[in-house]
Amino acid sequence: MTSTLPTPAASATGATAAHPRLSINQATIEYAHLATALRVTADAGVTSIGLWREPVAEVGLDTAVQLVVDSGLRVSSLCRGGFFTNPEGPARRAAINENRRAIAETAALGAPTLVLVAGELPEGSRDLVGARARVRDTIGELADEARAAGVTLAIEALHPMYVSDRAVVSTLGQALDIAEQFGSDAVGVVVDTFHVWWYPDLAAQVARAGAGGYIASYQVCDWATPLPADVLLGRHYPGDGVIDFAAISELVRTAGYTGDVEVEIFNQAIWDTPPAEAVAGTVASFGTAVAPHL
Amino acid sequence: MTSTLPTPAASATGATAAHPRLSINQATIEYAHLATALRVTADAGVTSIGLWREPVAEVGLDTAVQLVVDSGLRVSSLCRGGFFTNPEGPARRAAINENRRAIAETAALGAPTLVLVAGELPEGSRDLVGARARVRDTIGELADEARAAGVTLAIEALHPMYVSDRAVVSTLGQALDIAEQFGSDAVGVVVDTFHVWWYPDLAAQVARAGAGGYIASYQVCDWATPLPADVLLGRHYPGDGVIDFAAISELVRTAGYTGDVEVEIFNQAIWDTPPAEAVAGTVASFGTAVAPHL
Repeated sequence: MTSTLPTPAASATGATAAHPRLSINQATIEYAHLATALRVTADAGVTSIGLWREPVAEVGLDTAVQLVVDSGLRVSSLCRGGFFTNPEGPARRAAINENRRAIAETAALGAPTLVLVAGELPEGSRDLVGARARVRDTIGELADEARAAGVTLAIEALHPMYVSDRAVVSTLGQALDIAEQFGSDAVGVVVDTFHVWWYPDLAAQVARAGAGGYIASYQVCDWATPLPADVLLGRHYPGDGVIDFAAISELVRTAGYTGDVEVEIFNQAIWDTPPAEAVAGTVASFGTAVAPHL
Repeated sequence: MTSTLPTPAASATGATAAHPRLSINQATIEYAHLATALRVTADAGVTSIGLWREPVAEVGLDTAVQLVVDSGLRVSSLCRGGFFTNPEGPARRAAINENRRAIAETAALGAPTLVLVAGELPEGSRDLVGARARVRDTIGELADEARAAGVTLAIEALHPMYVSDRAVVSTLGQALDIAEQFGSDAVGVVVDTFHVWWYPDLAAQVARAGAGGYIASYQVCDWATPLPADVLLGRHYPGDGVIDFAAISELVRTAGYTGDVEVEIFNQAIWDTPPAEAVAGTVASFGTAVAPHL
């Protein structure tokens, strides 16, 4: 299972070789410490990983950087910055400083992209328009610093079911309205199938993102109903739900995106499997449902 | 509590009088039989009700019509037709015939509007584009019949969290793309705060709907997180969540809508209260959160 074949094919062991653009987002193996995550990913023949700040902080940034170097893996992104919806005050300043640290960590880890989640409607507020405006303004405060660090701030539009408690940026078009104010060398967008698959105008939105070079990350996982009691966890291996990965991957390919493709799955059952098994499941499902369309 | 005051004001009993445009959608008092629903609505001084087909069928259409006449209430809409996503075949033909019956019932009950829910992605299909095209085509088969009956088919765009299992029409813009092909004398749209409140371009979409006279129904209820285990039931009395009813009602008013405003709440706790109490709660919350902005 340590195949490093450059193209998808059956390995000598009969297992599917990992696609060279596949990246395991660490959230898919939520309970693995950083060293374990890197090891199981590399052992599966996967060449890229998307990291999260918490497990990096757990070992310290310097150690994390060394572990990454030793692993030989690319780091496709760091998750996550953002949470920009508070009005001016100490909480907002703290969030901005936290994002400055996140930009520095992203650069230190050699990742091109810091994924941003906009943040929720502040407690007691009904001013969605205002919260959205503050997301734009805060990204404006950070854009130059990101550019200087060689890091793209990748705004992730989350499914509208998360608009009040997680991310007030709900569509790719809305994320692009922000990103385009700063230029794709500083701010981009994430195209995540789970969040965007339902768009009536998906083709136009992906084309718009691609035309300006704004697609900073392509993330994949599947959607199935009924949603679980915690709607955050309703994600599945590609192919286990209703998303048309052929169609969406074709849009992203045509839009010119050639970077790593992260599989990011929040799913309790997958979290409860040993991480090497979850990575194997990811490699196999990605190989079948996504890789042929990249 | 049998106030019929034409404007909202405190009644002689100290309770809030019902706003003259308030309509109780029967789903808010889910467990009440038709006669009970009509009685508790009228007793609360509410002058309009939105009916559902199942409780109408339970007593039979002729009896239902007589009960409505006896109640003195307007019927603001009948819920619901639709479920138009099946490919050609017996299931699709059965759905079309069912909708023909629903149009006739709507006319018989004196309601101007039949609310349509598009229907789900068919079992085993990933062809969302095709399912959406079939919704358009099916409405095309029914539009003339609706027009002749004096009934507006009101397409209800449901929140995108329901796209795979309930309604493939996910935005007001998408509903308008269909409605505008047939004219507002036959096909319109529902503006339901629960489904549309998060739109980045809500003002533009409501204005577009209003400009063509396509707003066939304005429904209100509130959104709060966390969502319940069954996301269908995450609706609340106006004012109990995060929706800005002032802003949205102003958009709908400016767009020229002058019809009844239905409160439609799917909420287990509200269903578990006696229907007269649920109607009183609706009258009071509507009076505070919505009525001042109509």
